[in-house]
Amino acid sequence: MKSNLTTLGPKADKDTVRRSNLSLVLRAVRDEGDREATRAGVAARVGLTRAAVSSLVEQLLDSGFLTESGKTFSGQAGRPGTALKVARTGPAGLGVEVNIDYVSVCVVDLAGTGRVRLTEHLDNRGAPPAEVLARAAGIAARTLDSAAEQELFPVGVALALPGLVSGGAVRQAPNLGWNQVPAEELFAASLAALRPGRPELPVSSENEANLAALAELWFGGLDEVRSFLYLTGEIGVGGALVIDGELLRGAHGFAGEIGHVVVDADGPECRCGSRGCLEQYAGQSALLRAAGVEETGRGSGVAELERRSRAGDERAVAAVAEAGRMLGRVLSGAVNLLDPDAVVLGGIYRGLMPWLSGPADEELTGRVVSGLWSRSCGRLRASSVAGDAARGAAALVMQDVLADPAAYAAKAAG
Amino acid sequence: MKSNLTTLGPKADKDTVRRSNLSLVLRAVRDEGDREATRAGVAARVGLTRAAVSSLVEQLLDSGFLTESGKTFSGQAGRPGTALKVARTGPAGLGVEVNIDYVSVCVVDLAGTGRVRLTEHLDNRGAPPAEVLARAAGIAARTLDSAAEQELFPVGVALALPGLVSGGAVRQAPNLGWNQVPAEELFAASLAALRPGRPELPVSSENEANLAALAELWFGGLDEVRSFLYLTGEIGVGGALVIDGELLRGAHGFAGEIGHVVVDADGPECRCGSRGCLEQYAGQSALLRAAGVEETGRGSGVAELERRSRAGDERAVAAVAEAGRMLGRVLSGAVNLLDPDAVVLGGIYRGLMPWLSGPADEELTGRVVSGLWSRSCGRLRASSVAGDAARGAAALVMQDVLADPAAYAAKAAG
Repeated sequence: MKSNLTTLGPKADKDTVRRSNLSLVLRAVRDEGDREATRAGVAARVGLTRAAVSSLVEQLLDSGFLTESGKTFSGQAGRPGTALKVARTGPAGLGVEVNIDYVSVCVVDLAGTGRVRLTEHLDNRGAPPAEVLARAAGIAARTLDSAAEQELFPVGVALALPGLVSGGAVRQAPNLGWNQVPAEELFAASLAALRPGRPELPVSSENEANLAALAELWFGGLDEVRSFLYLTGEIGVGGALVIDGELLRGAHGFAGEIGHVVVDADGPECRCGSRGCLEQYAGQSALLRAAGVEETGRGSGVAELERRSRAGDERAVAAVAEAGRMLGRVLSGAVNLLDPDAVVLGGIYRGLMPWLSGPADEELTGRVVSGLWSRSCGRLRASSVAGDAARGAAALVMQDVLADPAAYAAKAAG
Repeated sequence: MKSNLTTLGPKADKDTVRRSNLSLVLRAVRDEGDREATRAGVAARVGLTRAAVSSLVEQLLDSGFLTESGKTFSGQAGRPGTALKVARTGPAGLGVEVNIDYVSVCVVDLAGTGRVRLTEHLDNRGAPPAEVLARAAGIAARTLDSAAEQELFPVGVALALPGLVSGGAVRQAPNLGWNQVPAEELFAASLAALRPGRPELPVSSENEANLAALAELWFGGLDEVRSFLYLTGEIGVGGALVIDGELLRGAHGFAGEIGHVVVDADGPECRCGSRGCLEQYAGQSALLRAAGVEETGRGSGVAELERRSRAGDERAVAAVAEAGRMLGRVLSGAVNLLDPDAVVLGGIYRGLMPWLSGPADEELTGRVVSGLWSRSCGRLRASSVAGDAARGAAALVMQDVLADPAAYAAKAAG
C-alpha cells in the first residue's frame, strides 16, 4: 500500500496552480509541434477554460516562451484564432557529451530541436581528466557563442559521461581510465574561467547511455514504445532502461550496466574486474579482433568491418553473427526479467544490424519465456539518428524549463 | 519530456476531492498501526485543517472503516482527543494462492493483518485446471465462512497463480502443465455455485511471485529498501521486481522471470523450451538431485536437504553452494542492470541461506560493476515470513478499498 500522502486541491495555493498551468499550456503548445496550436485547441486539450488559457498564453507570450502568428481557422464556431508556437529564441539547453574519442556539444531550443552542434574528435584516453573537461568546456564556450548569435541562451548544462556517474562525479569509467573524477566541478570551473563576468550556468551530469536512451524516447519516433532496453556498442557496451517513459536510474544511479552481465563465468578478464562480461564478446575491440580488422584510426575499424560484411567476407560476417548471438543471449535474460516493449541497439550496432539482428533475434526467440518474441516481431530495432547523448543531455535541461517556465522567465531574455 | 497533461485544483470537483481526502485520512490512521492516532495528529500529517479532518473522520466512523476508543493526551494544548483505529471488522480482502502442491487462502483486514488462513496441501499437477480451481474455490468458500464469523466481509478476491499470468488467465505454467487457462472465470463460476444467492465477488489475478514480493514490501520490515529483486525457490524459480515501491509488471505483465535467465547456453533443456536456464541449476529438483536427496513426499526433500546441510554432509553442502554460485552469477547481471537496494530470497532458499548466501555473495561481489556489493553488505537477505503470496493477494484487494473507501461504504456492513 502506497503510503505517500498527497493532497488534492485544498493545499495547492494559487501561485502553485498558476505555475503548474503555465507549464501545462507551454507543453501543450510544444507537443503540437508543427501543427497549428490555438488558444481554443489548447483549452480543450488541457481541460481549462478558454479564459484561463488566454491569460496563461499572454504571460507566456510576454516572457518570450511563445510566439504567435497569422490567423487560423479551426473549422469550429467563433472568431479565428492565431497560431501559437514555442519560441525559437530565448531559453535553451546545453548538452555536452564527453566520450572516449570525441566531445560533442549540442544546443536545443524549447521545441527540443537541435540548433547548434559542435563535435571534436580527439583521444580522451591519454589526457588527465581535468584537461579533458577543460577542453570540453572550451568547445562548450564556442557553442554558446554560436547559440547567442541565434539568440538562444542556455539556462543550464548537462554533461553526458561514460561509466558510473553519480553525485556529480564519474565514479569509474574503465575505458577512459577515470576514477572518482569530480566532473561537474572541473567542467564548471573551466567554463566559468572562459566566460568572465557572465552568470555561471548550473551543471548537472548523467551517464551517456541514459541520455542517449532519453533522446531516443523523446525524438526517436518510437511511437507506442514506452518501455525499452537501450544498448549502445562502443569501446564499451553501454545500456539504459526506460520503463513507462521514465529512465530507471537504480538505487545508486548505476542501473543499465548490461555490458557487464556475464556471458561465460570463466571467460576472458574484463576491465571491470569480473570475467566473461558481454563487453568481452560484443564490445568494439572484441568484435574487430574476431573479424581480423585492425583499428587504424578513429572509427576506421568499424567502417572497415561494415564494408567487409557488406562484401560478404566470411570472417567478418561470422564475427558479427557471433556478437549478435551473445547479445541475444544476454538480452533474452533481460527481456525475461523486464518484459519491455522493445530493445533498441545503438552505437556501432546500428550499422551492423543486417548481420547482427538475425542471430540475436534467433537467441531471443528461443529463450524468451513468454513466447512473445519472434524473428519478425520487430521488437529488436536499430536506434534512430536522434538518439544521441548530447541532444538527450540538452533536452534534459529543457525539462526543467518546461516544468516551471515561470522560474526561467527572467532568464529568457538572456 | 513527459507530456502527460495533468491539471491541479481547478478541474477536481468537490466530490472527487472529498473522496480522495477520505482515503488520505483512512491511510493516515492505518499507517499509525498500533500507535494512537488522533484527529489533530492526522490533520498535521495530511496537511488538512482540523475541522476538515473531523468531518472526514465522522464519515469514516459512520461507515464502519474507523473505530474510536478512550481518551488520549497528545501533550499538546487543547482538549484530549480520542484514539482512532481502523476497524477490525467490515471490508476485507481475500487472497487465494494456487500453487504446484498446495492451495492457501488468506483474509486480511483494513490494517493488512492476516485474520483467517486455510492451507491445503495437495498435488495440483495431476488434475485438470478446472478441477484445481474448483477445489480452490471450495477452500475459499470455507475461509469466507470463517471470516463472516469474525464479521469480516471480503469485497474482492485476488488469485496468486504460478507462471505467466495476464488478462485473467494463466498463459503458461510449465510446472503445473497449464496452458491458456482462464483462471479467473473458472474460479469465479465455482465460487458463485458454492454461494447461491450471495453477491458475486470480483476476481482478479496476478503472478504469485509478484504478490509475494508485494507482501514482502508491505509487511516484511524492509525499512528503507524500496527497490529489490525478489526470488523464490520452488519447483520453479520465480521472481519479481519492485522498483521505488512499485511492482514492475512489464509491457505484457511477464516481467520478473529470472528463473529463465540463461546460465549456460548449452546447458540442460528447460521446460520453457530454452536451454541452461537458472531453474536447471538452482530450482528445487536440480538442487535435490545434485545433493542426492530423494523427494518422498511434499516438502520432505527440502527438509532433508536442510537437515543434511546442517549436519555437514559434504554432498549436500556442495550442492547448495553450487546453486548459490549460479544464483549469484545470474543475480550479478540483474544487479548490474537494475541497481536495486537489495535482493530478497524466499521459498526453499530461506532455510538454505546459511550455506547458500556465502557463495552467492562471492559471485555478486566479484561481478557487480558498481563495486557496491560486498560479502558483508547485507544486501542479500532472506525473505520474511510475511512475504507470502496469499497475503499479498489479499492486501492487493484492500488497496482498492484504501484508495477509495467511499466506493465500498455500502459493502462494509457485509
